[in-house]
Amino acid sequence: MEYAARERIPVTPRGAGTGLSGGCVPAAGGIVVSTERLNRIIDIDPADLIAVVEPGVITASLHSASEALGLFYPPDPGSCAFCTLGGNIAENAGGLRGLKYGVTRDYVMALDVVLPDGRTFQAGSRTRKNVTGYDMARLFTGSEGTLGFITGAVLKLIVLPEAKAGFLAAFDTLEAASEAVLAIIKSGITPSTLEIMDSVTLKAVASFSGRNDLDYGALLLIEVDGHEEDVARQSGKLLDALKNSGAKELRQARDAAEQEEIWTARRSALTALARISPSVILEDATVPRKEMTSMVRAIRSVAGKYGLLIGTFGHAGDGNLHPTIITDLRIEENKNKVKAAVGEIFEAALSLGGTLSGEHGIGIMKSSYMESELGAAGVEAMRAVKDAFDPQGIMNPGKIFV
Amino acid sequence: MEYAARERIPVTPRGAGTGLSGGCVPAAGGIVVSTERLNRIIDIDPADLIAVVEPGVITASLHSASEALGLFYPPDPGSCAFCTLGGNIAENAGGLRGLKYGVTRDYVMALDVVLPDGRTFQAGSRTRKNVTGYDMARLFTGSEGTLGFITGAVLKLIVLPEAKAGFLAAFDTLEAASEAVLAIIKSGITPSTLEIMDSVTLKAVASFSGRNDLDYGALLLIEVDGHEEDVARQSGKLLDALKNSGAKELRQARDAAEQEEIWTARRSALTALARISPSVILEDATVPRKEMTSMVRAIRSVAGKYGLLIGTFGHAGDGNLHPTIITDLRIEENKNKVKAAVGEIFEAALSLGGTLSGEHGIGIMKSSYMESELGAAGVEAMRAVKDAFDPQGIMNPGKIFV
Repeated sequence: MEYAARERIPVTPRGAGTGLSGGCVPAAGGIVVSTERLNRIIDIDPADLIAVVEPGVITASLHSASEALGLFYPPDPGSCAFCTLGGNIAENAGGLRGLKYGVTRDYVMALDVVLPDGRTFQAGSRTRKNVTGYDMARLFTGSEGTLGFITGAVLKLIVLPEAKAGFLAAFDTLEAASEAVLAIIKSGITPSTLEIMDSVTLKAVASFSGRNDLDYGALLLIEVDGHEEDVARQSGKLLDALKNSGAKELRQARDAAEQEEIWTARRSALTALARISPSVILEDATVPRKEMTSMVRAIRSVAGKYGLLIGTFGHAGDGNLHPTIITDLRIEENKNKVKAAVGEIFEAALSLGGTLSGEHGIGIMKSSYMESELGAAGVEAMRAVKDAFDPQGIMNPGKIFV
Repeated sequence: MEYAARERIPVTPRGAGTGLSGGCVPAAGGIVVSTERLNRIIDIDPADLIAVVEPGVITASLHSASEALGLFYPPDPGSCAFCTLGGNIAENAGGLRGLKYGVTRDYVMALDVVLPDGRTFQAGSRTRKNVTGYDMARLFTGSEGTLGFITGAVLKLIVLPEAKAGFLAAFDTLEAASEAVLAIIKSGITPSTLEIMDSVTLKAVASFSGRNDLDYGALLLIEVDGHEEDVARQSGKLLDALKNSGAKELRQARDAAEQEEIWTARRSALTALARISPSVILEDATVPRKEMTSMVRAIRSVAGKYGLLIGTFGHAGDGNLHPTIITDLRIEENKNKVKAAVGEIFEAALSLGGTLSGEHGIGIMKSSYMESELGAAGVEAMRAVKDAFDPQGIMNPGKIFV
C-alpha cells in the first residue's frame, strides 16, 4: 500500500470474486491484491465465543470448523461454499439466516486494517462491548474495499442450536406467500430462515434439477431452530400460521437429508434462472417486510410494462427480494429495457421505504442511483468519509461513488 | 445548526444528562440543545418489528410500550428509568442484557441526522438489511454527538421472551465467581444477564438497602429467558455449572417480585458505593471474557498499591467490569493516586486485549488515553472522520479527542 500510495496506483482487494455488484473488479486498472493465501483460521475460542481469521478463509470452512466445536457462525451468503470472509466483511454480506441472526456486520468484533497510505490499525477489539471512539469496525464492514485493506478479523460466534426443522409451503400467488410471511412474524416466532420463490424461479429450478414437484404460484421455504422442544413449539405455531394463510400444500422435511434438499433447491435459484437466457441481471431491492406484497406487485408491473421475464426469489423474512431479469443483452433494445426496468424497481423500493441494496452492495452497478436514496447530503457525507481515508482516491476507485 | 455554523458557536446535544463520561457537558461553552421535548414514540409496528422514536424518549418508556405489544427492546443501561434513547444511541449504551442481546448499536436501523452545517439526511433505512454505501447509522451510533445531531431513530424490536428465571450464586472470591462465568458459557447456554459484584460492592449495597443477606466474597446474578420449557432447560444447565464451580450458596428467585429484588440490588450498586465517600470514579474497562480473572487480580493489585478502596461490579458475561474508586478528591494527594490508578487499570485492560470503554464512551474522561489503545494511526483515522463531518469543530468539541 505504501508503494501504491507513493506511485498513486489504484489498488483493488479481491477475495473469491463472487460478489454481485462488481466490488472486486479493478475498474480503474492498477493492482489487484488477492487474499487467496491469507486463508488460515487462526483460533476458535469456545470460552470467548470468537473466531480469529484471515480474510481469505472460505465462509463455509468457518461454518464447519465452528460447528465441530458446537459453535455457530450464522452469516451464510448463497455463495458460502466458495466466497471468502474478507469479501463478506467488505460487502457486509447477508444470506438466508438474516431474520433471526442478522448479517456479517453483527458478527464483526475487530478488524486489522491497512490504510491507503500503508499505516495500520485495529478497528474494534476482542471484547463484546467497545465504545472507544467511532465504530470503525462497522465503518469498514460494507465499505467495499474503498477505505482500506482488511488483513484479519475477530468474529463473534454463538452457541450452535441443537435442532432444526425445515418446511415447504406452497401458495397460489406470490402475494399470498408474501402475506403469509407477515402472519408468521405475527404468530410470535422468528424462523432462522424464511425464503420465497415465485413461479418463474420454481419452473427454472424444476427444470435445472429435474424435479417435478415445484409447480406452484409461489413457495415459502422455512427453517426454525433451537433446542428440541423449542423447535417442536415453533413448528406448531408455524404450521398454524401457514394453514390460516391459505397455504395450498404444506410439507415438513422428514430428516436432515430432505431438509438439505430444500436448501439446495433454494441455493440453485440463481444458477437455474441464469441457464434460461444469455444474460441475467440480479437485483437486490429491499423493503420493510410489511411492504413486500406491494413490492412484489411493482416488480410484476415492471415486467409487464417492458415485456421482460423476471424471476423473483429472496429472503422474505427480511423484505430482501432478488428480482432477476432474464434476457439477452446482446440485443441492443434489451439493454434500454433492462436499464429502465431496473430504475423503476429501485424507484418502487425507495418509495416503499426500502433501499437500493440489501446485501449485495453498490459496487459499480448501482453507484448512479445512490443520490436517489440518500439525497445529496447523504452522498456527500459518505464522500467526505471516503476522502478522509483515501485523499488520493487509490483504494478501489469507481466503486460506490460515481 | 445553520446559525451555529455561520457564527462558529459550539453545539452540545443533551438528553437526560445521565452519561458517565461527560458527553453532554458543554466543555467549550456555546449552545446546549436539549431533546427533552422530542419525546414521542411515533410508531411501534408489530409486523415490521420496529419502533420509530424521537431522541428524547426515556428508554424505559420504550421498554413498557413494546412489552405491552409482546415486543422487546433489549438495551437496558443501568439508568434506563431516566436516560433517553438519543443519549443511548449517541453513547452506544450497553446494559445488563448485552451477552445475549447485544447493545444499542445492534438495534439501530435508521437515524435522522442533522449535520454540523445544518444539512440533513437519513442514515440507514427501515429495512433489516441495508448495504447502500457506508454504514452511517452505526457511525453515528456511539459518536457522542461529535458528528451531528440525531433527531429521530428507527429501532429494531424483537419478540418478547415469554418467561424468565433469576438466580443468585455466592462465591468466596471474585476470582471464583469470574471462573464460574466461563463455566456457564462453556455449558452451552447464553444467559440474558450475567452480573458480578465483589465484596466491597455487596457491603455497600447491604448497608444502602438494609439487607443482611449479602455477606459474600462475590456474587453472580443471573437471568435466563425464553419460552417456559427452555427456561427450565437453561436453569438446569446453569445450576449444574454453578455447583461444579464451587458456588457456596445458590438461590433461585421464587417469583417475579423476588427476581425484581435481585435486579434492584444490582442497579443500586453505583448509588450505594457513591454514599461511602464524597468522590466516586466509575471505570468501564472491558476485557475478553476469558481474561476477566486476570483483570480482577490487576484491579486488586492497583487498589493495594495506592491504598484505594475499589468496588468492582459489572457485566461479567461481557467481560465489562466497572471498578469504582471510592475516595475524597478534595484531598490533593488522592487526585494523583486516582489518576495513577486509573492509568494502570486501563493499561491492564489493554494488555489483556481489552478496551478503555465498554459502554460509557470516551467523552472528556478518557480522551487522553485513546492513543494507548488505538495507536497514532487509529486516532488519526477517527480524527479524519471527525474533520470530514465537522471541519469547523463546532459539534460537541472537547469530546473523544484531546
